[in-house]
Amino acid sequence: MKQYIQDNKERFFQELFSILRIPSISAKPEHRPDMRRCAQRLVELLLEAGADSAQVMETDGNPVVFGQKTINPDCRTILVYGHYDVQPAEPLEKWNTDPFEPVIHDDAIWCRGANDDKGQLFMHIKAFEFLVRTGQLRHNVKFIFEGEEETGSASLPAFIKANRELLKADICLVSDTTMISDKVPSINCGMRGLSYLEIKVTGPNKDLHSGHYGGAVANPINVLCEMIASLMDNDNRVTVPGFYDSVVELSQADRDMLARAPFDMDEYMKFLDIDQVKGEKGYTTLERTGIRPSLDVCGIWGGYTGQGAKTVLPSTACAKISARLVPNQKSAEITKLISDHLKRIAPPCVKVEITPYESGDGFLIPINSDAYKAASRAMMEVYGIEPVPSRGGGSIPILAEFQKELGMDPLLMGFGLERDTIHSPNESYLLRQFFAGMESIALFYRYY
Amino acid sequence: MKQYIQDNKERFFQELFSILRIPSISAKPEHRPDMRRCAQRLVELLLEAGADSAQVMETDGNPVVFGQKTINPDCRTILVYGHYDVQPAEPLEKWNTDPFEPVIHDDAIWCRGANDDKGQLFMHIKAFEFLVRTGQLRHNVKFIFEGEEETGSASLPAFIKANRELLKADICLVSDTTMISDKVPSINCGMRGLSYLEIKVTGPNKDLHSGHYGGAVANPINVLCEMIASLMDNDNRVTVPGFYDSVVELSQADRDMLARAPFDMDEYMKFLDIDQVKGEKGYTTLERTGIRPSLDVCGIWGGYTGQGAKTVLPSTACAKISARLVPNQKSAEITKLISDHLKRIAPPCVKVEITPYESGDGFLIPINSDAYKAASRAMMEVYGIEPVPSRGGGSIPILAEFQKELGMDPLLMGFGLERDTIHSPNESYLLRQFFAGMESIALFYRYY
Repeated sequence: MKQYIQDNKERFFQELFSILRIPSISAKPEHRPDMRRCAQRLVELLLEAGADSAQVMETDGNPVVFGQKTINPDCRTILVYGHYDVQPAEPLEKWNTDPFEPVIHDDAIWCRGANDDKGQLFMHIKAFEFLVRTGQLRHNVKFIFEGEEETGSASLPAFIKANRELLKADICLVSDTTMISDKVPSINCGMRGLSYLEIKVTGPNKDLHSGHYGGAVANPINVLCEMIASLMDNDNRVTVPGFYDSVVELSQADRDMLARAPFDMDEYMKFLDIDQVKGEKGYTTLERTGIRPSLDVCGIWGGYTGQGAKTVLPSTACAKISARLVPNQKSAEITKLISDHLKRIAPPCVKVEITPYESGDGFLIPINSDAYKAASRAMMEVYGIEPVPSRGGGSIPILAEFQKELGMDPLLMGFGLERDTIHSPNESYLLRQFFAGMESIALFYRYY
Repeated sequence: MKQYIQDNKERFFQELFSILRIPSISAKPEHRPDMRRCAQRLVELLLEAGADSAQVMETDGNPVVFGQKTINPDCRTILVYGHYDVQPAEPLEKWNTDPFEPVIHDDAIWCRGANDDKGQLFMHIKAFEFLVRTGQLRHNVKFIFEGEEETGSASLPAFIKANRELLKADICLVSDTTMISDKVPSINCGMRGLSYLEIKVTGPNKDLHSGHYGGAVANPINVLCEMIASLMDNDNRVTVPGFYDSVVELSQADRDMLARAPFDMDEYMKFLDIDQVKGEKGYTTLERTGIRPSLDVCGIWGGYTGQGAKTVLPSTACAKISARLVPNQKSAEITKLISDHLKRIAPPCVKVEITPYESGDGFLIPINSDAYKAASRAMMEVYGIEPVPSRGGGSIPILAEFQKELGMDPLLMGFGLERDTIHSPNESYLLRQFFAGMESIALFYRYY
């Protein structure tokens, strides 16, 4: 595949850029036309790459792209999953270049979606194209690209239920995760689940003059801060009753295996420019994101946030709160536990509204499967090092659904790196990872 | 004056509207040209009303309007203070009509500045006009209207120092406060001071994926919430060391006098649509805003605040924090106490920056002076009830400066009502208060 990449590199960039340029932000309703444009462009790319058929399929939300090529019904079938929607680009002022105009410099592609997940799903289309055009394809291949991953894949469970036969496969192959580093290839063998909710605290029914009322009427910002502060104790454990009840505690052997992943605390703190890490007492940094649940405020707002000083006691304050979950925490249960707890601790001087958003359970992947072994062999050949099994802190909630509904394990060959800062300004994707990913995927087909 | 108002009402509205339409928002640098336009228009209005001279005078910030009429150097001189700048209109979506296009309905004028302070300072220009045109003026009158009251009157102290002779007067007459209700006229005999600062908490140097880092790296929103929550204890007392050290505790006799002001808790809670008030233990609601200092978060922001769910562990979180102060708390000292305390309690996993904004000391006004007695008699004649001395919770920091620099007490004849919701959307000013204010001011000149 190396030579094929060399010969077709410029075309690859132009094709990838044509989807990167479409601002397919699923969180913002005004981008719905962009979702469809992006889906249609992916259909074209699948057909050009050699799919027998490819189409935009409707859901209750953003459309799904489905394409396939059948070699022989007796061969193994690989379902490639990816998502063409991206995170919002805000804060826009922190981008060095236009978030939706890809550029290549410093050995990387820079654009929202360059990695997550347009860049990574594109590797699959090109590895597939290579196998087709060189007559090496020995598997039936199906592609499903959804447009709601970043907002919780709300429409996909119903789509999966309605299209079981169509989606049936032996393995669900996904590139939407990171490796430990480009010198330490790794394969994700578990991901965290997610609960996400918004809380709105209302004090007085209008914004008030903070002089006339300050000190006499509950300030919803102060109250919200007190509520949020109380969600964690001094050991950085979540205080929501029942939060840890179903968490699977790992054996020392399992913890030892995960501890094999190399980790340099100095480099980690330097990359983030922090003087100290912070997390649950009794666990290492890798364990805190790999095998332990966490709770973060992803956004907060209330009162006057413009320039200068405005003295106001605001009517409302809001926050977006997310929890990352581990096996066997059930997302729906945890969302309810957090909601109920927030309502319970709200003082009587305010009113509280909770809106639950996306959610999904975490999952584990067996590392003794044919698929895992094939991926390991493929990556070892490309990187020259045996990949380490790792636990990802992020979430791809829909994969638990595939596992449950279609009885098919996911295989997470992700080629992102932390340096790519997905979800943040100046997202990028290293070219050498982009190409090593294509090679690894093509070799996976050979060894699976 | 009643008849004069009747005969000139429409002209009064058109003149007032001409200044209300100018968005003189001092907090926003882009409105600087509007500040000057508004000042120039006030010069015209003062000259038309009968001032001997009126001019726009430069400061380091927004210009000051100064006008005067001299009857006889031996007569008493009244300095009328007001401010032509207004608060920002945000949140714009909560306004029922354009915030800078005045409308009259439901017996009130609706516009940003309708009360605070354009509507109230305008009453002085018209009372003055009436006295001049009917040959009844027996005082020398000076007007000073500043353009930075809402942002802390930063340029005025230097202006006062540089223009002592020009500003010299026997009393500083101000209408920039509220009465207890339109059935319970009151005269402010004290106001709170103000400290205001902004805090920025920085965790990692970039926004992070909350899955990859959540639980392992300090989240600046969570940290900021914890810091803010710790600023108040369970008795709703401020925990900043030294905060209460210089607070003057009132005697029981003084507390009893203030308690004469009628207060209906049910009506108060109904007006705000709250089920419970909240404030410092051991004090009544009126005391909490009148004689006790308070601390409020006026604004907070961080992370993703758009629609939908974005999973991010943000790099920074900010809040605007204000404290209302009582005699003898020194604003500069309190700002430093709060800043130092915030820096001290910040955990080592984050960095903290503090920006101090506007500030000013509180003050008390004697109620046995000629001026107070004249105001009381004037308002009794208009309202048919003797006005109650009250303590305002708000702040007009510059008045303490007048008192200190020019040895001149302020007299606060304010005609606003809580229903006017100044600083909030849909600010308004009741027409009957607008007219009763003019009458009261004209009578004050008679009895002083």
